[in-house]
Amino acid sequence: MTVTHPNGFEAAGIAAGIKRSGALDLALVVNRGPAQQAAVVFTSNRAQANPIIWSKQVAADGIVSAIVLNSGGANCFTGPEGFQVTHRTAEAVASGLGIAAGDVLVCSTGLIGDQLDGEVLEEGVVSAIARLSTDGGDDAARAIMTTDTKPKQVVVEGGGWSIGGIAKGAGMLAPGLATMLVVVTTDAALPSEELDIALRAATRVTFDRLDSDGCMSTNDQVTLLASGASGVTPDLAEFTAALTDACRNLALQLQADAEGASHDIAIEVVGAVTEDDAVEVGRSVARNNLFKAAIFGNDPNWGRVLAAIGTTSAPFDPYLVDVSMNGVRVCHAGRPDAPRDQVDLTPRATHVLIELHAGEASATIFTNDLTHDYVHENSAYAS
Amino acid sequence: MTVTHPNGFEAAGIAAGIKRSGALDLALVVNRGPAQQAAVVFTSNRAQANPIIWSKQVAADGIVSAIVLNSGGANCFTGPEGFQVTHRTAEAVASGLGIAAGDVLVCSTGLIGDQLDGEVLEEGVVSAIARLSTDGGDDAARAIMTTDTKPKQVVVEGGGWSIGGIAKGAGMLAPGLATMLVVVTTDAALPSEELDIALRAATRVTFDRLDSDGCMSTNDQVTLLASGASGVTPDLAEFTAALTDACRNLALQLQADAEGASHDIAIEVVGAVTEDDAVEVGRSVARNNLFKAAIFGNDPNWGRVLAAIGTTSAPFDPYLVDVSMNGVRVCHAGRPDAPRDQVDLTPRATHVLIELHAGEASATIFTNDLTHDYVHENSAYAS
Repeated sequence: MTVTHPNGFEAAGIAAGIKRSGALDLALVVNRGPAQQAAVVFTSNRAQANPIIWSKQVAADGIVSAIVLNSGGANCFTGPEGFQVTHRTAEAVASGLGIAAGDVLVCSTGLIGDQLDGEVLEEGVVSAIARLSTDGGDDAARAIMTTDTKPKQVVVEGGGWSIGGIAKGAGMLAPGLATMLVVVTTDAALPSEELDIALRAATRVTFDRLDSDGCMSTNDQVTLLASGASGVTPDLAEFTAALTDACRNLALQLQADAEGASHDIAIEVVGAVTEDDAVEVGRSVARNNLFKAAIFGNDPNWGRVLAAIGTTSAPFDPYLVDVSMNGVRVCHAGRPDAPRDQVDLTPRATHVLIELHAGEASATIFTNDLTHDYVHENSAYAS
Repeated sequence: MTVTHPNGFEAAGIAAGIKRSGALDLALVVNRGPAQQAAVVFTSNRAQANPIIWSKQVAADGIVSAIVLNSGGANCFTGPEGFQVTHRTAEAVASGLGIAAGDVLVCSTGLIGDQLDGEVLEEGVVSAIARLSTDGGDDAARAIMTTDTKPKQVVVEGGGWSIGGIAKGAGMLAPGLATMLVVVTTDAALPSEELDIALRAATRVTFDRLDSDGCMSTNDQVTLLASGASGVTPDLAEFTAALTDACRNLALQLQADAEGASHDIAIEVVGAVTEDDAVEVGRSVARNNLFKAAIFGNDPNWGRVLAAIGTTSAPFDPYLVDVSMNGVRVCHAGRPDAPRDQVDLTPRATHVLIELHAGEASATIFTNDLTHDYVHENSAYAS
């Protein structure tokens, strides 16, 4: 059920002492090969944490032997000292495993602006290496949790190969400071160029369509490691489909565990001129605090949906738009349709269907409601 | 203290029976001249309410004799029937006053998607006309309130002329469904073309810099009416400065009464390459829910400020940025500076200074925090 399911991978998750609580806080995933092919996508935020700056260099040649991840501190806006901690962490992994530091990715998550203790991390890496095993994926999934309430893991089986993954993030892509970190492994035999194509295709329609609170992290990283240990080279389309399944599964686990949320909202936009338009429309609704607060209150306030759509540049005629909530069409052709009280918004799973009647393209954006618990958790994060 | 302070204006505010509570819900402001010059700015939301569609036509020739405003219903996404109600309301004002319907602006505010009762509005207009007086501005200010807790009014004195204004809105520009409506009057003698220049200049640095919750209304309208009754034609720059003062005063009253807010936050961005960059940076912070929730919790979480800046296209180097909160520099050159506990965020007035060190331009954005009360009010709006 995790990153150590595909052949060729070992992992560990340990308590290095970064978190005051004594919880697991350092994870290590090692690719034992025979191949060490990789692809990585990074946050597009221009304010980037030290591990992002480091890992971009590591990922450039498509070869990655190991990835080390810590919770308990983002190592972002911590200056040259912070970069040295990231470098020192990678060096510790490299010397312990007898590999090159330039093949070690580093991820960090937690509060921005706090220095991590390099010695604590270095000692943690030594402990993690001692604990590496082909059963270690579950511990690794737990060690990257911050405000997550449960670990997120997935396995997808291919024909003679498989994909495994772990993820953390209680905000989302364009996520909160509760950064999204994802490690996906496979024993398929594919070169980094094809892994890159597959990963970009998969994240584009999964993690990139998840927008819990509109806040983009400084530390986001989605890593795909391929060991080639199955000896099987799948068709790229087949692999991409399986990888997309794995990423969608993890993305929906992230949504279901989003900070303070009481509704998981799928905003399905159909009849757009282009897919980009559909995404823009869905995202504008997903980021509208008035809409999100209404869903929290089980209020099918479709006027807020239309007001959000009106802020986009997507072609549409307000007097052609239909809006349905949980199967009840509350707005037809830009006018009231079924009475609001016919909509049952008590289930956590919420479906909003927006029919633009402007074209043939569609997209679904996944978001959450705006709740008292969201405000509470995020007003108390630093304390 | 209100729209009837300048010479040439009468106003009334009455309870027409649109609000079930029996509160004042219909306002009328009439320009008795001798001139009926006007300028209006409208919401840029592409989903526009019926009164916006109507009023854009009325405002096109720069001549406006009266403006009628109702609370208790936005008349948005109510189809041709809704447009007929707007038209009928303007006709009632016109026939009662002996003027042309094409010189009567209409504004509505309240819930989207509910039909207004045209007969109730028509009878309300008759009552309002009977109550018109040069003391009626205060009643008019009260009649346009929705979730506002207090009326907003202003007077600015010029040299032999004056400006008066009323406003409502408990969300803000880019506001909530608690739409911003503003009526500003003056007895200065200026043609509509100059009024338009002055109004656009004034709103650009006042209402356009207010971004309480990032949600743009379908019904926003800011109207400037000039009677010429003072007989004085002020210098346009002098008039624009006074109008900007009046608009800023009203904007800050809106901020201070924003739904559920516990902090009024001024985000001052300095050292940007262009003013547009400064506005983009300030707005990105103002719309960041994590930052807003942190301020609610009196947490000077500057990492969230930098994470928000990183999502913009403004030129900046993260390792040159300084951030101060209420006078304490918590981030210097992208690294931790003064300890967080030196910042006192208990006052309602909150000042965030962002020094980009990229250029010479600056701008200030006014916003509010994200609170439990905001979530509560907006999850219960329709009920």
